[in-house]
This record gives sequence, C-alpha cells and structure tokens, in this order.
Amino acid sequence: MNTPVSFTDPVSLAASARLRVVLVGTQHPGNIGAAARALKTMGLARLVLVAPENYPAEEAYRRAAGADDLLADATVVATLADAVADCQLVLGCTARSRRVQLEEHAPRQAAALAVGRAATGGEVALVFGRERTGLSNEELQLCHAAVHIPANPEYSSLNLAAAVQVLAYELRLALLERTQVADAVVVPPDEAPASHAHMEGFFLQLGETLDAIDFHKGRTPDSAMRKLRRLFNKADLNEQEVRLLRGILADAQRMARLAGSGGAGSLS
Amino acid sequence: MNTPVSFTDPVSLAASARLRVVLVGTQHPGNIGAAARALKTMGLARLVLVAPENYPAEEAYRRAAGADDLLADATVVATLADAVADCQLVLGCTARSRRVQLEEHAPRQAAALAVGRAATGGEVALVFGRERTGLSNEELQLCHAAVHIPANPEYSSLNLAAAVQVLAYELRLALLERTQVADAVVVPPDEAPASHAHMEGFFLQLGETLDAIDFHKGRTPDSAMRKLRRLFNKADLNEQEVRLLRGILADAQRMARLAGSGGAGSLS
Repeated sequence: MNTPVSFTDPVSLAASARLRVVLVGTQHPGNIGAAARALKTMGLARLVLVAPENYPAEEAYRRAAGADDLLADATVVATLADAVADCQLVLGCTARSRRVQLEEHAPRQAAALAVGRAATGGEVALVFGRERTGLSNEELQLCHAAVHIPANPEYSSLNLAAAVQVLAYELRLALLERTQVADAVVVPPDEAPASHAHMEGFFLQLGETLDAIDFHKGRTPDSAMRKLRRLFNKADLNEQEVRLLRGILADAQRMARLAGSGGAGSLS
Repeated sequence: MNTPVSFTDPVSLAASARLRVVLVGTQHPGNIGAAARALKTMGLARLVLVAPENYPAEEAYRRAAGADDLLADATVVATLADAVADCQLVLGCTARSRRVQLEEHAPRQAAALAVGRAATGGEVALVFGRERTGLSNEELQLCHAAVHIPANPEYSSLNLAAAVQVLAYELRLALLERTQVADAVVVPPDEAPASHAHMEGFFLQLGETLDAIDFHKGRTPDSAMRKLRRLFNKADLNEQEVRLLRGILADAQRMARLAGSGGAGSLS
C-alpha cells in the first residue's frame, strides 16, 4: 500500500489516505498513467480502475512517469458499486448533471466537502467517467453529489487526466489548509456517516415500501426514487438515522401486508 | 485571431484576450497540443511558442482534440524576450524559484494578479519552461514574479500540460469572479427552501403516520420525533420534496386505515 507522505499534519495525512480516485471504463491507457501522475504530484495515492478498456498497458506506465508505483498499487474492479461500497461520500465528476437530480458542487466546494469527510474518518471517492460518454445515469445514481469544473461552455471537453489534475489540486489545497487544525474529531460509531452499502440497503427497502403502499399508482417509479435519493443523500445520514428510517419502513411494510391480507381487496 | 467568447462580462472577456500562455523550448509536441486543449477548455485562446523542439507536428494536433484552432493561431518566436516584449506583467511557472530572487506566488494569487492587471488594460504572460529543465536563469530574469504550484515535495513533477491546466483553471475562476456580481440567481418556486410552516405540517403528518403504523409500540414518541426532525432539517428540503414526502405518508396512512378496518384486529 502506497502511503502519501507529503502532508506534515497527521490529520491531513490520514485524510489523504481515505481519498480515492475512481476511473470508470477508461478507454485510453495513457490517461490512466497521466491520472496516476497527477495524483502523485498532489500527494494522493489511491487509484481504483473500474473495467478499464485496455489495461494493463505499456502506454499507461510510460505516461505515469515516476508514478508507476500508484499504477502497481491500483485496484481493478468490475463495477462502480464495487469501487465505492465502503464509501461514505461519493462525488461524480460530470460535464453537466442536468440529466440527474444531483446537487452540484464546484471543485473547490467539493474538495472542502471531501477533505472534511475524510478528516473525520469517512472513506471518500471521486469518480471520473469514460472519455467520450462520461458516467451513465445508473452510475450517477450511486453518487451523492456531482462535481462540475466550470469550463468554457463552448468547449468544455477537458482531457480526463486534466480533470483529475484539477480536482487533485483542489484536494491538495484543502488538505494543506487543514494543517493548522490540530486534533482529529472522534465520532462515535452510531453517529458516523452511513456507509454507501447501508444507504443502498435503505434505498432498496424504500423502493419496496413505495410498491407495498401503492405509492406509484401506475406511474413509473424512477422519477420519485431519483428525487428521494437526492433528498436523503443531502441529509447526510448517520448509521443511527438509517436504522431509524428503516424501522419506520418496516412498520409501513407490515401494515401494508396486513391491509393486503385483510382489507385491501375491497378498496383498490 | 481566435476570440474567447466564454465570458459574459465584457471586462472579463476583454481581460481574457490580454492573457497569453508562453511555452518555452517544449520538447514533446503532444504537450503543446494538450496545453492548447487545456487553454480552450478554460476559455483562453492565446498561445505563444518559443523555439519548440519539434513543431509543427501531427502529435500536437492529435492531442489538441477540438482546440486545433488555437494551434493554428499560435505564434512561434525565437526567444522569450520576443514573446513578452509588449507585456506589462510576466509570471514564470517554476518548480522552485530559490535559484533566483523572485517573489513567489501560489496559482490563486498569481491568477488574481494576472486578471487584475489584464482587466485594467495590461498585457500579461504566463511562462512555462522545458519539460526536463524548466526555465533558464536568464529566462527567469525576464519574469516579474514566479508562480509555484504547491506540489508533493517528494514528487513535484507535473506534466507540462497539467501545469498549464491548473493555471488556466485558476485564471478562469478569477475571470468568472468578476462576472458573478452581475447575475442574480433566480430559483424556481418549487425548488425554493420549504417554509417553516410547511415543515411543521410535514412533521405533524409524520407523527400521525408513526402512530398509525404503530411505530412506537408503547415507547414514548418524543425521542424518535426529535431525531427525525433533526434528520429532515439537515436535508434542507425544498417545497417539491416536502410534497413528495407527504404523498408517501398519505399512502402509508391510507394503508394503515385499510389494515385497521380489515385485517389488523386479528393480529394486534
């Protein structure tokens, strides 16, 4: 495991180790190498590759220059869900997030958010999509918020590694700003941010409950679920809160079963 | 002459046209192309090449992607002195400027300085040296100040185009900051924050729903409601989201009534 050693403040150092950059479906291996170099220059070390199209490849190592250790340590996984399963905060970099109802941050805000979360013990992922097509809508659904680099609207096509460089630069500045802050904040486990997997479990049960109480009434469920995901992701839930909400859902599901077995037929 | 059109504020637009990026003695033509792309994504357009080693070259156009117009418009000159002869401010990007006695700025400060000068009519150059050896001492003598990207001291070797991207990004932010004063943000009524009264209406219905689905089971309801209030207040709900949640509660209440009239008696 490659440990970033470029932060003198122990909190920033620990936080930097909880930041990962996830590249999804990268087409050109040169971009993977250049992204690794961009990360290492900014004192970051964790690279996760989701189903890269052409990797490993010599071109990646060539463009990585002295950052080949990051490539050697990079994890390769099959899906974005695998890459972020243990994350409390997942930020998706996108040209524009109008397609999905995601809160959108500028790189500087996103970096403050990411470093703040990582400094209090959270695992954080910054996710970058394919060169041509970016992230799919399904992949964006796995993100808590979007990051948008305020590019020229007439030519917004940043190279993938250039986008990684900009975000890594802002992360480094945010980590360096922390250097004054001395103490780590100790968060009780119950109040720790809910993990990505626990949030997904909650959303799954929420969807089942909406079906059970006949919320959709023939409408397509996608739009409501998208809005609800956005809403609960905004709320920044902790583990205790997720358990509370799931308890309520369980009771609503129980009530719906009861209604179905006893009295539903007469009304619907 | 390529005019940057990506700034709506006329002062920013005029200022952006007075900013040039100068690449000195670039070895790899791919970096020239990638630098052109980096500039164009940030709404900048002026590129000056001082004695490039291998240019023009197909590789430059390939890496420029849609920014080939910047390459076509780029000026090629023999010396840095030629490139900056008409400039009022010349900033030299360097890994470290200890060798020469130059004032050193971080990219953000440098961008503020550059845009401030350009906005008041000055011609400004940002100068980037060779991939391996940077700027010579003589070339640094032509600069008014140095810019240093705060890289990982253990691996500070940014790719040339990546360094151009970081500086161009900061220049764009500085130019956009000038614009923001002008535009008022109009929020659609649906996305306006929910009023206090609407939040209280929601909490009232939430409490009723918890009773209806028998969530408390004899426990005092205060603690759960306190946690739920905190949770939903954190989420910063808008009017549309409050309506969505109340719709779900209404269906859960309907289901509970149904269960009560039909099948509940047999179970509780």
